[in-house]
Amino acid sequence: MSKKKDLNVGIVGYGFMGRTHSNAYLQAPRFFDVAYRPVLKAACARNADRVKGFAENWGYQSAETDWRALVARKDIDLIDIASPNDTHAEIAIAAAKAGKMVLCEKPLGRTAEEAKAMVDAVEKAKVPNMVWYNYRRVPAVVLLKKLLDEDRFGRIFHYRSQFLQDWTISQDLPQGGEGLWRLDSAVAGSGVTGDLLAHNVDMALWLNGPITEISAMTETFVKQRKHNLTGQVEPVKIDDASAFLCRFQNGSLALFEATRYARGHKALFTLEINGERASAAWDLHDLHRLNYFDHGDEGQLRGWKSVHITDGDHPYMKNWWVPGLQIGYEHTFIHQIADFLVALDGNRTAAPTFRDGLATDYVTDAVLKSAKTKKWEAVPAA
Amino acid sequence: MSKKKDLNVGIVGYGFMGRTHSNAYLQAPRFFDVAYRPVLKAACARNADRVKGFAENWGYQSAETDWRALVARKDIDLIDIASPNDTHAEIAIAAAKAGKMVLCEKPLGRTAEEAKAMVDAVEKAKVPNMVWYNYRRVPAVVLLKKLLDEDRFGRIFHYRSQFLQDWTISQDLPQGGEGLWRLDSAVAGSGVTGDLLAHNVDMALWLNGPITEISAMTETFVKQRKHNLTGQVEPVKIDDASAFLCRFQNGSLALFEATRYARGHKALFTLEINGERASAAWDLHDLHRLNYFDHGDEGQLRGWKSVHITDGDHPYMKNWWVPGLQIGYEHTFIHQIADFLVALDGNRTAAPTFRDGLATDYVTDAVLKSAKTKKWEAVPAA
Amino acid sequence: MSKKKDLNVGIVGYGFMGRTHSNAYLQAPRFFDVAYRPVLKAACARNADRVKGFAENWGYQSAETDWRALVARKDIDLIDIASPNDTHAEIAIAAAKAGKMVLCEKPLGRTAEEAKAMVDAVEKAKVPNMVWYNYRRVPAVVLLKKLLDEDRFGRIFHYRSQFLQDWTISQDLPQGGEGLWRLDSAVAGSGVTGDLLAHNVDMALWLNGPITEISAMTETFVKQRKHNLTGQVEPVKIDDASAFLCRFQNGSLALFEATRYARGHKALFTLEINGERASAAWDLHDLHRLNYFDHGDEGQLRGWKSVHITDGDHPYMKNWWVPGLQIGYEHTFIHQIADFLVALDGNRTAAPTFRDGLATDYVTDAVLKSAKTKKWEAVPAA
Amino acid sequence: MSKKKDLNVGIVGYGFMGRTHSNAYLQAPRFFDVAYRPVLKAACARNADRVKGFAENWGYQSAETDWRALVARKDIDLIDIASPNDTHAEIAIAAAKAGKMVLCEKPLGRTAEEAKAMVDAVEKAKVPNMVWYNYRRVPAVVLLKKLLDEDRFGRIFHYRSQFLQDWTISQDLPQGGEGLWRLDSAVAGSGVTGDLLAHNVDMALWLNGPITEISAMTETFVKQRKHNLTGQVEPVKIDDASAFLCRFQNGSLALFEATRYARGHKALFTLEINGERASAAWDLHDLHRLNYFDHGDEGQLRGWKSVHITDGDHPYMKNWWVPGLQIGYEHTFIHQIADFLVALDGNRTAAPTFRDGLATDYVTDAVLKSAKTKKWEAVPAA
Repeated sequence: MSKKKDLNVGIVGYGFMGRTHSNAYLQAPRFFDVAYRPVLKAACARNADRVKGFAENWGYQSAETDWRALVARKDIDLIDIASPNDTHAEIAIAAAKAGKMVLCEKPLGRTAEEAKAMVDAVEKAKVPNMVWYNYRRVPAVVLLKKLLDEDRFGRIFHYRSQFLQDWTISQDLPQGGEGLWRLDSAVAGSGVTGDLLAHNVDMALWLNGPITEISAMTETFVKQRKHNLTGQVEPVKIDDASAFLCRFQNGSLALFEATRYARGHKALFTLEINGERASAAWDLHDLHRLNYFDHGDEGQLRGWKSVHITDGDHPYMKNWWVPGLQIGYEHTFIHQIADFLVALDGNRTAAPTFRDGLATDYVTDAVLKSAKTKKWEAVPAA
Repeated sequence: MSKKKDLNVGIVGYGFMGRTHSNAYLQAPRFFDVAYRPVLKAACARNADRVKGFAENWGYQSAETDWRALVARKDIDLIDIASPNDTHAEIAIAAAKAGKMVLCEKPLGRTAEEAKAMVDAVEKAKVPNMVWYNYRRVPAVVLLKKLLDEDRFGRIFHYRSQFLQDWTISQDLPQGGEGLWRLDSAVAGSGVTGDLLAHNVDMALWLNGPITEISAMTETFVKQRKHNLTGQVEPVKIDDASAFLCRFQNGSLALFEATRYARGHKALFTLEINGERASAAWDLHDLHRLNYFDHGDEGQLRGWKSVHITDGDHPYMKNWWVPGLQIGYEHTFIHQIADFLVALDGNRTAAPTFRDGLATDYVTDAVLKSAKTKKWEAVPAA
Repeated sequence: MSKKKDLNVGIVGYGFMGRTHSNAYLQAPRFFDVAYRPVLKAACARNADRVKGFAENWGYQSAETDWRALVARKDIDLIDIASPNDTHAEIAIAAAKAGKMVLCEKPLGRTAEEAKAMVDAVEKAKVPNMVWYNYRRVPAVVLLKKLLDEDRFGRIFHYRSQFLQDWTISQDLPQGGEGLWRLDSAVAGSGVTGDLLAHNVDMALWLNGPITEISAMTETFVKQRKHNLTGQVEPVKIDDASAFLCRFQNGSLALFEATRYARGHKALFTLEINGERASAAWDLHDLHRLNYFDHGDEGQLRGWKSVHITDGDHPYMKNWWVPGLQIGYEHTFIHQIADFLVALDGNRTAAPTFRDGLATDYVTDAVLKSAKTKKWEAVPAA
Repeated sequence: MSKKKDLNVGIVGYGFMGRTHSNAYLQAPRFFDVAYRPVLKAACARNADRVKGFAENWGYQSAETDWRALVARKDIDLIDIASPNDTHAEIAIAAAKAGKMVLCEKPLGRTAEEAKAMVDAVEKAKVPNMVWYNYRRVPAVVLLKKLLDEDRFGRIFHYRSQFLQDWTISQDLPQGGEGLWRLDSAVAGSGVTGDLLAHNVDMALWLNGPITEISAMTETFVKQRKHNLTGQVEPVKIDDASAFLCRFQNGSLALFEATRYARGHKALFTLEINGERASAAWDLHDLHRLNYFDHGDEGQLRGWKSVHITDGDHPYMKNWWVPGLQIGYEHTFIHQIADFLVALDGNRTAAPTFRDGLATDYVTDAVLKSAKTKKWEAVPAA
């Protein structure tokens, strides 16, 4: 591999996403032929002890407790926002103004309005920007995208996608607090719509094009939970479940559903697409398998093929092990940053950009609106 | 087994359903301990040659070409309507007036209005009546119903059900004619909504209770097809795909979808139900498997169990073979008529009755209406 | 369908196999275009009451309690032996001498020696003869045979086959008696080797050709069981598990295993074959699925296809329902008798003949011998 | 996490295993609370350019081209042998003599004789030692081991295990050379027996105890291949396929099979174990799934559970992501070195030790011997 240039990274947040991103920065240059090597300059979070421990573990050279200080540092090229949703807009806009590249965890904003301001900021500043919709980098999904781009499916009739979890069924779970801010609407913006459904939507827009109109319903099954800040039992304002019917611009029909109340499912992100000549299905619980049906196959032998996406000619896989040997969840982040570094070297942009993130926020906003109005709602173009 | 009483059957229709019903009449008394033995008195259809051949093959003692003559016969106890949808109401009402027991293929009517008249007729005449929603008699589904009745699931959060086929994608398929009347709206009433979705709905109402409101969309992908009667290319009036969001009276949310444009699926009737304490899933392509998740299982060993419903203590199965050996599609009809015969002997009614069939028609009517109005529509109680 | 000729059947045995055969005689002419209609003339078994009940249920015109009387009847064309293994040879030889067609449950003899005498008898008498290795008529397996015959697999490297059950693990199960004669070596001849492994072997010989040499092991896990005749606890003489390595004449290597001690498996008959250009796998628990791997597929999309063998162009399936709708276990018997009737009309023989059954007995004899000698044993040609 | 002590590592070999081990050294201290942090002091291989590139990529502080020089270095605590099989014994013995800890890729020796000398060396030198049978650290397998240790299975009746690949079917593949030394018997020692079957055996001995006797067969399907060193077509001396029957000390029967000629399988390492009260199955293609059957389950709901081993209470998994999110192949090496480091801190030994590796070599030697003698062969105790 060639000599690599330094790319100085400052990260905000040391939680779950802080770990996946940090790991990605370290692993990408070892497994992919990228022109840049991320240098972990600084980690930033409010809790000084914790951020110091985090920095030591991952090899960040320094720790900060104020993101404004981080953004102000001259020795940092890229700000990575891995903190809760309510911090995304403010940090991203400041970082853009400071001329930093900006990577941001999904969803981009708590609302499309927030997201729009973020897009404006990075586009005005002309800084590279990307949203961490990591599942676009699952090798099986990348192969599916390629098959669609080659027009192997013909006219698309149907798309469907779910994200099923079951971890908030217990009424004893508080809203807010460490690891639980996703239940606090002030921090998270919404419930499963922004947290889970946003993944379904981002991938669908990428694979199947724009959504034009939506009819949605949401539900909050547990109406009251103790709030971690007040210590009081308070109304729950997030959506526990969210589902919608829609039409895509290409004429296909779709159903989407996300919930944290589907007993027995941990992180069952699924998708299926049915075209005139082919169909495909994938799910996150067996992420290395692409299920593919080709109507062009000989009639008596038509069936769904389970393709084990672990070969050297499968996307990203020649950089890992040998056929039959799997990769896991964190590899999607490694792939995404590797793509970002390759694009950077070529003065290109790696998707999904902030503008792509805004497109998803328009859809999730329409979902939440339709659930309230009980009407079909149109989706604006991003 | 005990000595059996005769039950004299006259059937209308010799198509696909004529075969499944006839087979059921013959097989039921051999495999189940029922008090009645169906005697195949007469088969009726307009084409004299064909109905004669049909009668010979299945052992019907006579053939008729006018259903009115059949209904008028004194030697017949039960009229079984296995002919296309546009004949159901007229024949059923006449048969009820003649004091016959009436069995009718699904959907009961082309519209709820038709179905309501049929319900009124059989209830006024006080004759035993049943609709052939055969999938209620899949052993795996019957076991699921039992588990639900035992309250093993707790509060229900989600229900979802699909019926996916791909056989009408070709534009060359005509509407109407032998085996194709399901594409002719005048005969069928609707497209997949009455043909496929009705199965999903009947089973859902049985398993999960009443549906209260619906938001639906339908689509006709192929807009014009040659009509077999006129020989002309004419607008297609049936729905090729139909999907809806809904709420059940028990507070659960649901998504339903039926289509004949899901490439790669033959007759993929699926259902899944998620409760607080358990979840279950089933599909018709592997009909003898019930997938069951029990949250009460030991934490580290929780998972989806694939239960092969072929044991002697599974519904209906002690009457068939030994554990591990499957039954097939036609057995659901055999079970249904066996249940009917047992109920008859006890002066009880076997479900689904015509009134149950009406409940489904109210839902499918609401689906078609909502797809037009683009509004949420309420579902009347049957 | 054309007018059918009568074929007068006399059956011996009213147990599990008496039921599957009787059902097959009744169903075959209704679903298949065969020249003969089996007429159920007489059922025979020692218990007069039971055989009378059996005859009534299935429509046999008469009942016999002595198989010699049955064989002597002039009004019977075909003797079907569905009784325990220790009766096969004597009845078959007598029936052949009487000029009857002879069908016999598997295994043909308790030993190859018995089977050889049976072959000699039917071949000397020149009577049609067939062994009920029913699994050769599973549509998925028939399709596999066709694919092999078309040389789609190239050179065969590997074959493997299992038959896993778990129903005799309990030590409380007696040996011998109703439904349990398979545990009594005097009646059954052997344990799983003749009962289960014989199915694996018959199918392997049919699909992959002759086996040349064998190294085997057997085991009796429960050493003593109460015997139903003596009421005493006696040594168990059957094999509870049986496994062997072998080489086929075509150069491929194979592993076979049958057991009644594989907890969790009901009747898991599996097979897999690996060739240079293709591989296939099948199992009885999901009998309508053929799993097929074609190395000729485009590299990035190679995978195992699950083909749902329920289409009109799949073997036997156009005679049943529509795509996606399954058939079950008993249909394999219906297919076999349908094939027999078609062959009969063409003066041809339907396989597997008694000579084919002998070939399997040579293999199972070699298995039992090798397990004792602890040496590789050669398999004679049938 | 606590402050970590340095552990200075020198590695021999930069191939596939050089990468997996190097990755493990870097990742283990970031994800696991271990007392030691491996310091990558030196990488060693004959090709100076390549080893330099390898060292740079992984962060080794220096490169060596002579393993003797590496072993002689005072600044190295641990020698890790990731080079081809023919180098294992010499390096390991020298390293032990030099007082280094020794980790060695599997199989330990090309023969049990080699392995025995290695065991003697490390035991005499009293240095920590471990063989990289990485699959023992798949979380699903670790859970299975725990379930077995808790005696949930009762008496074990059956064990079976396969390792199926298809990558050497082409006759054009040479023997020997980069990435192909596994086909050169001088370097590899044997073919699939030492390469693949050794994994099956190591895991079986760990899970199910000692094997007492074996009957085996091997085959070389492609008899001649071009040799990379001579450029000549030469006889192939390795085994392409290897299979054996055996008995375990606990009375269970087993079948093992490994091959590189099973078209359609990439790295399908499977295992199944059947006990009186429970059964379990696992395979490497879906490594995070443990399939478990518990006979203690309620009768009507008994079935095989697919447990997605990704929860916090599953082995190793709390150190990774959240429920539902998978890990991959390389994590097994990370787990193994993490266990080694924890054991080191406690002055304990992490298995499998060299003595465990010898036990596997005794079995594979017996397999090769039995395949030649065509007799059952006893397996010595390690």
